[in-house]
Amino acid sequence: MKRTYRKADMPAADIRRLLEPGPIVLVSSRWQNRNNIMTMGWHCVLEFSPSLIGCMITADNHSFTMIDKSGECVINIPTADMIDTIIGIGNTSGRRINKFKKFNLTPGESNTISAPRIEECYAHFECRVADRKMLAKYNFFILEVLSAQAAVWPRFPRTVHYRGNGVFMESGRNIAMPEKFRPENL
Amino acid sequence: MKRTYRKADMPAADIRRLLEPGPIVLVSSRWQNRNNIMTMGWHCVLEFSPSLIGCMITADNHSFTMIDKSGECVINIPTADMIDTIIGIGNTSGRRINKFKKFNLTPGESNTISAPRIEECYAHFECRVADRKMLAKYNFFILEVLSAQAAVWPRFPRTVHYRGNGVFMESGRNIAMPEKFRPENL
Repeated sequence: MKRTYRKADMPAADIRRLLEPGPIVLVSSRWQNRNNIMTMGWHCVLEFSPSLIGCMITADNHSFTMIDKSGECVINIPTADMIDTIIGIGNTSGRRINKFKKFNLTPGESNTISAPRIEECYAHFECRVADRKMLAKYNFFILEVLSAQAAVWPRFPRTVHYRGNGVFMESGRNIAMPEKFRPENL
Repeated sequence: MKRTYRKADMPAADIRRLLEPGPIVLVSSRWQNRNNIMTMGWHCVLEFSPSLIGCMITADNHSFTMIDKSGECVINIPTADMIDTIIGIGNTSGRRINKFKKFNLTPGESNTISAPRIEECYAHFECRVADRKMLAKYNFFILEVLSAQAAVWPRFPRTVHYRGNGVFMESGRNIAMPEKFRPENL
């Protein structure tokens, strides 16, 4: 059974709500008329506005070449029900297979770039490569989020977080205490 | 009641187990005979060996100056029971107060640097600033972990992850499926 979330645009400056907790993400890319997807855990919010994300992608990964050459990718947030897909994507290489087909995922048209979104994910952030200065030494891309969409409901997705050695952590309960924060620290 | 974990050394290359899931961390630093602590959520594993962490620290933060000048800090992993301390540290500035005293935390002696650990935390990673090239433009420190310790038990800590707007997510249940991974992808 395929399930897609109903989504709405969200401000690019607000993506920290979904990325800062540290979930495993799926990165989709497009180059030379081929699509690809990778599983990624080494990422970091860098700035609200412009909305910047840093991420480390091993250079011998096929996605590294595709993102570097095309200058684009989509950061997609999968939910816990997609765990088998997340692992399968991490275990295979786009050099040999079409991962959208293999994992029965739907490539959706992006608003601002040619790389496709993954429709089954909870959210997607369309990105351009904004800075390559850290690529040679650290394989670290600095991405700018150009457009962002997220599911309208639920407000907070059940995400998966990787601990290494084949062990994932699922996001747990929320602790909301906005009254304890000074407005400038939210 | 004060509680400290019993800890043991862990290989610096293994810290991804604790950092990759994306918890809020407490960064302790020391400069000109003063200690300080900040709450941080924008960090990223960059490499296993040498063990590298990237983190973004706003430049007007007092800790930014202390870490930049001293070239050192400790990344401490607090657990969910410390939520009030985590928020309190994030809401105050070390320019005006001694946060170890204010929040009743114990500065412990580090093995390799002069910045103190926070004994009450689950784990601590002693770091030196390894690269400042991304500081001017992105406030992004590249840190090398020189020595790491973690609690012997429990194996996986109950951490907190920040969603912004005063909402935290607590780490949830584990999903272990090492049999689905190829060894080189663990």
